[in-house]
Amino acid sequence: MNKIKAAIIGATGYAGEELFRILYSHPNVEIIKVTSISYEGKNYSDIYQNFNSLTDLKCESGSDLEKISKEADVIFIALPHGIASKTVTKEVLNNSKVIDLGADFRIKDKKIYEEWYNVEHFGEDVLKEAVYGLSEIKREEIKKARLVANPGCYTTCSILSLYPLLKEKLIDKNSIVIDAKSGVTGAGRKADLGTSYCETNESIKAYKVASHRHTPEIEQELSLAFGENIKLIFTPHLTPMNRGILATCYAKLNGKYDYETVNAIYRKYYGNEKFIRLLKKGIFPETNKVKGSEFVDIGFEIDERTNSIIVIGAIDNLVKGAAGQAVQNMNLMFGFDENSALEYPPVFPA
Amino acid sequence: MNKIKAAIIGATGYAGEELFRILYSHPNVEIIKVTSISYEGKNYSDIYQNFNSLTDLKCESGSDLEKISKEADVIFIALPHGIASKTVTKEVLNNSKVIDLGADFRIKDKKIYEEWYNVEHFGEDVLKEAVYGLSEIKREEIKKARLVANPGCYTTCSILSLYPLLKEKLIDKNSIVIDAKSGVTGAGRKADLGTSYCETNESIKAYKVASHRHTPEIEQELSLAFGENIKLIFTPHLTPMNRGILATCYAKLNGKYDYETVNAIYRKYYGNEKFIRLLKKGIFPETNKVKGSEFVDIGFEIDERTNSIIVIGAIDNLVKGAAGQAVQNMNLMFGFDENSALEYPPVFPA
Amino acid sequence: MNKIKAAIIGATGYAGEELFRILYSHPNVEIIKVTSISYEGKNYSDIYQNFNSLTDLKCESGSDLEKISKEADVIFIALPHGIASKTVTKEVLNNSKVIDLGADFRIKDKKIYEEWYNVEHFGEDVLKEAVYGLSEIKREEIKKARLVANPGCYTTCSILSLYPLLKEKLIDKNSIVIDAKSGVTGAGRKADLGTSYCETNESIKAYKVASHRHTPEIEQELSLAFGENIKLIFTPHLTPMNRGILATCYAKLNGKYDYETVNAIYRKYYGNEKFIRLLKKGIFPETNKVKGSEFVDIGFEIDERTNSIIVIGAIDNLVKGAAGQAVQNMNLMFGFDENSALEYPPVFPA
Amino acid sequence: MNKIKAAIIGATGYAGEELFRILYSHPNVEIIKVTSISYEGKNYSDIYQNFNSLTDLKCESGSDLEKISKEADVIFIALPHGIASKTVTKEVLNNSKVIDLGADFRIKDKKIYEEWYNVEHFGEDVLKEAVYGLSEIKREEIKKARLVANPGCYTTCSILSLYPLLKEKLIDKNSIVIDAKSGVTGAGRKADLGTSYCETNESIKAYKVASHRHTPEIEQELSLAFGENIKLIFTPHLTPMNRGILATCYAKLNGKYDYETVNAIYRKYYGNEKFIRLLKKGIFPETNKVKGSEFVDIGFEIDERTNSIIVIGAIDNLVKGAAGQAVQNMNLMFGFDENSALEYPPVFPA
Repeated sequence: MNKIKAAIIGATGYAGEELFRILYSHPNVEIIKVTSISYEGKNYSDIYQNFNSLTDLKCESGSDLEKISKEADVIFIALPHGIASKTVTKEVLNNSKVIDLGADFRIKDKKIYEEWYNVEHFGEDVLKEAVYGLSEIKREEIKKARLVANPGCYTTCSILSLYPLLKEKLIDKNSIVIDAKSGVTGAGRKADLGTSYCETNESIKAYKVASHRHTPEIEQELSLAFGENIKLIFTPHLTPMNRGILATCYAKLNGKYDYETVNAIYRKYYGNEKFIRLLKKGIFPETNKVKGSEFVDIGFEIDERTNSIIVIGAIDNLVKGAAGQAVQNMNLMFGFDENSALEYPPVFPA
Repeated sequence: MNKIKAAIIGATGYAGEELFRILYSHPNVEIIKVTSISYEGKNYSDIYQNFNSLTDLKCESGSDLEKISKEADVIFIALPHGIASKTVTKEVLNNSKVIDLGADFRIKDKKIYEEWYNVEHFGEDVLKEAVYGLSEIKREEIKKARLVANPGCYTTCSILSLYPLLKEKLIDKNSIVIDAKSGVTGAGRKADLGTSYCETNESIKAYKVASHRHTPEIEQELSLAFGENIKLIFTPHLTPMNRGILATCYAKLNGKYDYETVNAIYRKYYGNEKFIRLLKKGIFPETNKVKGSEFVDIGFEIDERTNSIIVIGAIDNLVKGAAGQAVQNMNLMFGFDENSALEYPPVFPA
Repeated sequence: MNKIKAAIIGATGYAGEELFRILYSHPNVEIIKVTSISYEGKNYSDIYQNFNSLTDLKCESGSDLEKISKEADVIFIALPHGIASKTVTKEVLNNSKVIDLGADFRIKDKKIYEEWYNVEHFGEDVLKEAVYGLSEIKREEIKKARLVANPGCYTTCSILSLYPLLKEKLIDKNSIVIDAKSGVTGAGRKADLGTSYCETNESIKAYKVASHRHTPEIEQELSLAFGENIKLIFTPHLTPMNRGILATCYAKLNGKYDYETVNAIYRKYYGNEKFIRLLKKGIFPETNKVKGSEFVDIGFEIDERTNSIIVIGAIDNLVKGAAGQAVQNMNLMFGFDENSALEYPPVFPA
Repeated sequence: MNKIKAAIIGATGYAGEELFRILYSHPNVEIIKVTSISYEGKNYSDIYQNFNSLTDLKCESGSDLEKISKEADVIFIALPHGIASKTVTKEVLNNSKVIDLGADFRIKDKKIYEEWYNVEHFGEDVLKEAVYGLSEIKREEIKKARLVANPGCYTTCSILSLYPLLKEKLIDKNSIVIDAKSGVTGAGRKADLGTSYCETNESIKAYKVASHRHTPEIEQELSLAFGENIKLIFTPHLTPMNRGILATCYAKLNGKYDYETVNAIYRKYYGNEKFIRLLKKGIFPETNKVKGSEFVDIGFEIDERTNSIIVIGAIDNLVKGAAGQAVQNMNLMFGFDENSALEYPPVFPA
């Protein structure tokens, strides 16, 4: 079979590395290029020794995206925000499909982006055609897209957990609280005291309270689902584990709904989704049950005492929360089996 | 100096063991007896080898509490619920002061206790005189008590985090959400698959969603503070760390309050408290900064977008959340320096 | 393609579960049966929720192995020692190929087995035809075997690390020390205080000092390689991580050998092995670089000051140390591509 | 009581911070100064928030040691090697006692120091009067010393584990292997990719194989004990835990000795030592049983099959392996109770 050619821009962060791992086993993809700002010229398998004996690729420069777009069929960008909005041009998109794992094309309203990210957005024309790549929700648009904005890790987990409730208007739009917990890979790969072993291990803390940049992204998509503007509370926590996101979501119910009614609604939206698993009553997600996989596990409970619902979602932040969803989107964009290279069971205990 | 004599009933659980550790360094206390259901007859330092060379005590039977009350000046009970309500009699209290680290005397309304704990309460007469031992809130009553019901770990952290807001009626009483995260010692010491290393490590999960027994205890004390009956959502999470509780508390503000106003209120209530540390603006608690200590760290943020407050508290669940607070209460009950044996800095990184 | 039918006897331990995970993605295998002593009648995906939505199999009884052998083409046995020696009969082997992940058929000398394992061996006739399944060393015999004794986790790592040195007689046979460190999955899945989270986390300890049952297994195979009887010191340690074995092996060199000479010998034996990775000079194995994979990473250093060699090997104890090697052996026994279902890169960080 | 005045030079590393924690509770000591190269001018409790509300000290410059020596009765130095050898002058020692937690004064032979540490030693005159501060072995010399070279963490654990065997010449001096495992605090506090959470967690590795700088220090002291020059193998491992060192030590016995004979020898040397705990037969040290404490736990086994002994020692690397031993030495130097501020039980589980 002819394979498409993939380039990973920013391959030495954890999301880029996870992309490499997943694409390596993809039957329709050849990885032709990995780029890195910090490690240009180095063997990729010297940076990530887990890939020892599996690749001879060297880290190259990723700065000339137009040139790369002439060689690659698909470009994955896994860079800090603010770079892709400058380098992803119409010219690039004429040559190659682009999946950006960063934030630059997620927020449709340029002003909101600039306000939360505190940088100017240089790619307004390109932004317009970007499709928000939450595979299960935007499947048809993704299939036709040239540029997909791959969602954030917290956002993927939060939106998928709450989407049916908002779509069906079961909850009070002003009552939403999302208390999310992430493993440390979410903070990226870097020499940083704050994520050093001894400062992070055996401890949990909230951070960026009432100010995390995934907030407007969650609000944008849930507002779209609800049909009205929504503001919500989102609190991320750093949890002493490598991988995983757990989003515990709270909302007041708009009326009296029993478990079965709500369950039927979740099944209506997700019953046929390969990667969304609705757990049985009384069973709640654990991040170790989705580790290394594309699965989203969702469970919920209704608290009659307060007429509220608690919905809990779990993902692997590097897979469904980043690289896996990027591959799922690629599969959609290229007409491959949507599940290709993603059907592996979670690795447990890992 | 004459030392009082202390007995620890249920000394082989983690709370009992932490009591031993703290009391061991207490200048006014001699531990005369440790009891255990599972390890009767065994050397205590064979069960807890950290105490090797520090004690020759053997685990004894703790079933005859009246007899023990004749030998001990203070009895600490660290047993599963349902036992103390049978064994703590008026006769026991005539002989000895009792601090119960279990749940039997925390809930003032016998029916609520029986409903949540699913056992009959046999000690109604004794229950009446029990004082809820949240040291900072009930200090004067504790000083005069013969029987103190030491608060739960989640409850200590949750109540102290929210108390000033309710006392001053700054928040909407129907909007309270407490999302709490606990280390695994909170589940006790036992052979159990659910808390085995490989099932627990590298994972976070919610449990007892909308049904945890600390809920009515938190509601009881916050209702007292507020002056009206409160129902709230409380969700505990099992976090991959040995010790620590983080309570992330959410509520809608009743009006427009800025950070400084709320901060002044917290200082009014806690400014002179030795063991409550109010963190600077922008700094939020981390469990590793209180580990091994009696401290409660509290930080908060106001989210103007949703007119809500997020208050976060952190404690060591075995110290302020159990054994340390029990010793603080003992200090109050016997007229010792309230801080005695509790003034050690947190051990970090530990 | 016609798939062979596989049964996993003892599928609810971690090795059995890892077998399920790997076989699930094997193109030539259909898992037709999972058995369990503890969970008979339960849905397999209720025991291992990571397999939720991936299988409908229920745990069955595994006691009638002859019956199972009529349905299955290959039987994997992942049970405590002492059972397989009774149930694996000639009749079973006439019907089906068997790969035993337990210890019953590893030790060729029945007396040594009985001495170290403290049980009688009931399958002496069958023991004779069992092939020790260290894939890289016994490849040709495994291809022809009906019964493969899959090596232990520590033994796989230890033998592969030292094999070329002994085969080439580079070291003093009386000087071998193996200091091995294992993740907690090595202790199996069970409710046990000793492997509970709080007793295991944040600590390392040696156990079964000078008495671990993998000792005679390592000695048997290294003696075979060396051509003389060898006795060595083997010390296992419990390490606070889910997976991984690191074996740090020490021996006095028989003469003066420089790094390049020894390196050439390692390359001679392992240079063409897909799953053995010889690391560059100065790079030593880390267990997280092989996690979830079949790889064995080996590095060494020569200490001229003491004329000794330190060889270090790392594996994933559940993959190359158990289930992965079992599948590698199955691939050999059935003439499949030896690497089938095993070519996935390590998952990092996991 | 009059308190002595202590200065901590390099108080923002983990050893310096642990010194602060221990000295804070010392009845005879007032900490008058903390210095830091990186954090000069900052509040100490902003760097280490565990000390929040406990101290108002600001980090000062530590460069003028002579000036500091006029204010302080004792100076603790916790700096990278190569600095103290320049700044600790005779003048400093005339004013103040000095305890150096770094390596500069540990190696008596200046050439060996310079060879292993790859820097010039500038304090040869001062080096001569330095006493190697292994409290239990050099007690009488320490009492009279002005300058104590506090031992390394690995060395403390290794030397104490093997000392009686060498002193009594029970083992072959050419057969010693020390396989040591350390928690990550041993690597210090810094922004470094190699000790970041995700690269370190869930993994174990050897490092500085056959080249770690604690090797000559162990050899120096064991050679002194044995009376002949000893060379040995020392291999450190990075273990995924915050604190703790486990040293698994191997040696060939010089003759046939049974357990009781060897045990009697250990008791002869350590039976009266408050901080050395000799474990019962069959019990081996675990690092979590000494955490936060000054204890050294030692257990051993004789392997008759190879006529070898395996001795295992465990310490908390920041306490007995650094700050605690420094305080023990200070207690000796100033005539305080040797155990002062060190008698706290280990914190478990922590």
